[in-house]
Amino acid sequence: MENQIFELQYALDTFYFLICGALVMWMAAGFAMLESGLVRSKNTTEILTKNVALYAIACTMYFVCGYAIMYGGDIFLSGITGDGVAGADEPATYAPSADFFFQVVFVATAMSIVSGAVAERMKLWAFLAFAVVMTGFIYPMEGSWTWGGNAVFGMYTLGDMGFSDFAGSGIVHMAGAAAALSGVLVLGARKGKYGANGSVNAIPGSNLPLATLGMFILWMGWFGFNGGSVLATASVESANSVAVVFMNTNAAAAGGLVAALLVARIMFGKADLTMALNGALAGLVAITAEPSTPSALQATLFGAIGGVLVVFSILFLDKLKIDDPVGAISVHGVVGLLGLLLVPITNDGSSFSGQIVGALTIFVWVFVTSLIVWFAIKAIIGVRVSEEEEFEGVDIAECGMEAYPEFTGGK
Amino acid sequence: MENQIFELQYALDTFYFLICGALVMWMAAGFAMLESGLVRSKNTTEILTKNVALYAIACTMYFVCGYAIMYGGDIFLSGITGDGVAGADEPATYAPSADFFFQVVFVATAMSIVSGAVAERMKLWAFLAFAVVMTGFIYPMEGSWTWGGNAVFGMYTLGDMGFSDFAGSGIVHMAGAAAALSGVLVLGARKGKYGANGSVNAIPGSNLPLATLGMFILWMGWFGFNGGSVLATASVESANSVAVVFMNTNAAAAGGLVAALLVARIMFGKADLTMALNGALAGLVAITAEPSTPSALQATLFGAIGGVLVVFSILFLDKLKIDDPVGAISVHGVVGLLGLLLVPITNDGSSFSGQIVGALTIFVWVFVTSLIVWFAIKAIIGVRVSEEEEFEGVDIAECGMEAYPEFTGGK
Amino acid sequence: MENQIFELQYALDTFYFLICGALVMWMAAGFAMLESGLVRSKNTTEILTKNVALYAIACTMYFVCGYAIMYGGDIFLSGITGDGVAGADEPATYAPSADFFFQVVFVATAMSIVSGAVAERMKLWAFLAFAVVMTGFIYPMEGSWTWGGNAVFGMYTLGDMGFSDFAGSGIVHMAGAAAALSGVLVLGARKGKYGANGSVNAIPGSNLPLATLGMFILWMGWFGFNGGSVLATASVESANSVAVVFMNTNAAAAGGLVAALLVARIMFGKADLTMALNGALAGLVAITAEPSTPSALQATLFGAIGGVLVVFSILFLDKLKIDDPVGAISVHGVVGLLGLLLVPITNDGSSFSGQIVGALTIFVWVFVTSLIVWFAIKAIIGVRVSEEEEFEGVDIAECGMEAYPEFTGGK
Repeated sequence: MENQIFELQYALDTFYFLICGALVMWMAAGFAMLESGLVRSKNTTEILTKNVALYAIACTMYFVCGYAIMYGGDIFLSGITGDGVAGADEPATYAPSADFFFQVVFVATAMSIVSGAVAERMKLWAFLAFAVVMTGFIYPMEGSWTWGGNAVFGMYTLGDMGFSDFAGSGIVHMAGAAAALSGVLVLGARKGKYGANGSVNAIPGSNLPLATLGMFILWMGWFGFNGGSVLATASVESANSVAVVFMNTNAAAAGGLVAALLVARIMFGKADLTMALNGALAGLVAITAEPSTPSALQATLFGAIGGVLVVFSILFLDKLKIDDPVGAISVHGVVGLLGLLLVPITNDGSSFSGQIVGALTIFVWVFVTSLIVWFAIKAIIGVRVSEEEEFEGVDIAECGMEAYPEFTGGK
Repeated sequence: MENQIFELQYALDTFYFLICGALVMWMAAGFAMLESGLVRSKNTTEILTKNVALYAIACTMYFVCGYAIMYGGDIFLSGITGDGVAGADEPATYAPSADFFFQVVFVATAMSIVSGAVAERMKLWAFLAFAVVMTGFIYPMEGSWTWGGNAVFGMYTLGDMGFSDFAGSGIVHMAGAAAALSGVLVLGARKGKYGANGSVNAIPGSNLPLATLGMFILWMGWFGFNGGSVLATASVESANSVAVVFMNTNAAAAGGLVAALLVARIMFGKADLTMALNGALAGLVAITAEPSTPSALQATLFGAIGGVLVVFSILFLDKLKIDDPVGAISVHGVVGLLGLLLVPITNDGSSFSGQIVGALTIFVWVFVTSLIVWFAIKAIIGVRVSEEEEFEGVDIAECGMEAYPEFTGGK
Repeated sequence: MENQIFELQYALDTFYFLICGALVMWMAAGFAMLESGLVRSKNTTEILTKNVALYAIACTMYFVCGYAIMYGGDIFLSGITGDGVAGADEPATYAPSADFFFQVVFVATAMSIVSGAVAERMKLWAFLAFAVVMTGFIYPMEGSWTWGGNAVFGMYTLGDMGFSDFAGSGIVHMAGAAAALSGVLVLGARKGKYGANGSVNAIPGSNLPLATLGMFILWMGWFGFNGGSVLATASVESANSVAVVFMNTNAAAAGGLVAALLVARIMFGKADLTMALNGALAGLVAITAEPSTPSALQATLFGAIGGVLVVFSILFLDKLKIDDPVGAISVHGVVGLLGLLLVPITNDGSSFSGQIVGALTIFVWVFVTSLIVWFAIKAIIGVRVSEEEEFEGVDIAECGMEAYPEFTGGK
């Protein structure tokens, strides 16, 4: 009987992991739709190709070595067999394969953040080469120092210093944004984005329903992202925690959306849809570092702060001529940092100093290693398409097909 | 041991609520895609903005006061804390936050129904102002008289009179349609929709794949909408009930789609996709008032009746010059009423008189209060865009950006 | 207490079936988006109409007689009542209605495969007439010989011969492809697809973001398709199996996508998005016959083999002038056969001879009966639209409305 109860707990926790993992996998579609809606039609096929390929590469590389780097075990092929994952220290309370599945979709999320920021001018194969290193090595290393519990280069342990990042505002989102930022700096802005006299030219997205769909997919998938990060649901305590996380994740996104919409209305005089979408995503990123301890009111406010911050961040990055077509660095990087800094307000187990050290560790590691990789790729195959290819659109040059061959014939 | 079994029941019921709630949240994306596919491209950004904003407003307002009005507790901020929802009378058998999460997505559904009917000519901020009152007060009040169990103005109790609405054909769908109808009456028809000599001009939707996607999203989300309304799943009896609800919900949508497709074929000589989509939605609305007691055959037939009714209702409203660009009043209002009236056929606990009193109570309350609010908004900021803005499209006027800037250049 | 544990197992298994079934239902949206993205805009409304209608027809016909043919019970209306499914031999361990719901969405998947292959030239009502027979009789018959456990025409029992098809590489996917192939042969190629001197003209899809969205939806839905086919999850053993199936399904899709992308790059010099999408789907089909016994490495490799095979198969079918606008026969038929043949490598309970006999049985049955039905439909109402209708696009002829009336004005 005791054993049957254990079996039920094991089964429920496993099923919960798998469903949450499937929701996070769905976020890959969300990023693909968001980014393809926000670029110009001539660069749409290529951004779609990058998005589907990066997800597949992330799943493969994390399986080949990433999971083992992050959580221990045989380095190659993660020691995963049909029976589960080898090398676990303690007896499993849910299926080891479910754990792998839940972790692998997180890597893909981190990588999805990069593709939007470097859109419309980066070579496809340069991007995919970076994806191999990012998902197989760079992300797993910082993951090993945080969720993996290892000391950073054997020197200091972030958990001991009061660092806490529940579902990855820093570990996933800011990390992705750090890799994106280094890529954008190596790559430069799109032709025509910034005028000679400091002017910023808006380059409107070609398909806003797609971008909106992408935002809704991400919002839905985020219930799995944050909800699954409770890591158990088969008791009253953990079930309550998962429920609070769902409620707060929803509240923060709502707060972020409303705040960004109002700020954009005040600043631009219009109901700016793309800012509203980024506001919702900012709310989600802001709550991700700690969705389980705030009240719903705090979650709404934290989301709203994220929604306000993201509008100013997007404007500020344009002042610096850091060209991010979809606003990914602001949404995931700037607001990811905000998320980390909000944790100690409601979580006694964390400290501001710990959050700052953790944020610096993640940012410096990912930014520097990414920069090295981008420069290496630049030296070997180049990172940027030719001026003519950029003008004609990367779809024809890289993929040999238009995304909407019948809708934009005259262009 | 006894306690461990209780914990597992609690955990399973909570997880079930959360997954069903996530599916209902997903319906917000369904409405956004459906509506943006059925309006013209020049009004697409604005309908998307309304859809994302109304969801966020609904989540926030229901949290601020709606949930408390509907189910009791502190009026402001619903008494929700990180630990759950205060003020419950009996010990919880699932996480209180999960209950809030499941309820909050229903409010958003009611509000989503309104946006389609008033599309292409209502001011964005007028609509959002209405959303605040609808989700924070109008819907919660009628919800308190039905699912909340309160007497209507202290006068009569609908449950005692034999009123039953399992998942909200009336409480959610007809309520949303009543608010939509009052808005349409205040607003008037789109320019050019009705000719001088009684002619009705078709205004085709700009993106039918989006509309179809929206229908599929709604169909999928409806499994959570109806399935979650069993309110428990952790026993043989409740699990069987949830399974029957899933089966019947699917059967009714299928019946509605086939029936509407055939009726449209007979009447118009063509396989009318938009009628088929509305037929499926009508099937879903028709079964929502009682998906647990019909046989699968009855569910298919009830859905088919809904599918036939919606075609005639759409044609009839056009005769009355009630201009509803997406057919929302027919799908959710007329068929919502049908759904209520079908309940007593299979559910002994309800009566036709109870259903009629309940339907009248909901309709009169929502229609009259909505009318007051629409007139108030009209007096203060106006509800309708200018003729020039309507002609140019509300996207530029309200949002400052086109939905498809590269596809419709010549317009 | 014993009973309470049984109730919890029953409830968890039922909920698992329902969620997996909802994910498979979602695949109908995936096929609709994939196919509408890969056809020309002038044929988009019609392919959408076919997709929504076939799903509704499949659900209705399988309920009317298909389920009973496949698994026994009363032939008409399946003996399904509000209480469950009649005629089960052993006491249920999960809700009978949940079983029906999970099975019914599989039929729809088989039928969805057909619509893509016959796109852009088949009459809508001819297709729907075929859907009635396919989902009510052809598929249920071969299903009764496989998952239903009946002897083939009373002659031989496939299970006894070592045939095994876990989630339906053959029973669902190859069966759908066999019906599609016979339809394509009766129908002929689209005008202009094949030139006089053996040339093959590319006919690009009109909306690649939609096609990509469709692939992501299918990938997500496949977790339910394969994961639900374990048929139980409420024990450590079955939970582990479900988790392995999720992990392997994801790995195979990733392997297929990467392999197809690389092969297309080598052969065409470009990163061919549509081949990448078909590669992912091929990986999914390849693993579907046995996702529970391979290691994750084997799953990745099996998927990759599928991804390579699908590229060559698509090119080869074009050489044979078998015109399949979306590649469905290659993805589901050729790779479906591959999936069956891979099973004995990891599953001792199956044999190559058994797989071959099973594949032949399914293929011959579905192909021959489909051919008869297609010819009968051709004789009665015709299967192909007129040349003029094909040139103008079937949307206007069949549905009376364009999918994108504002984007392709000049066509």
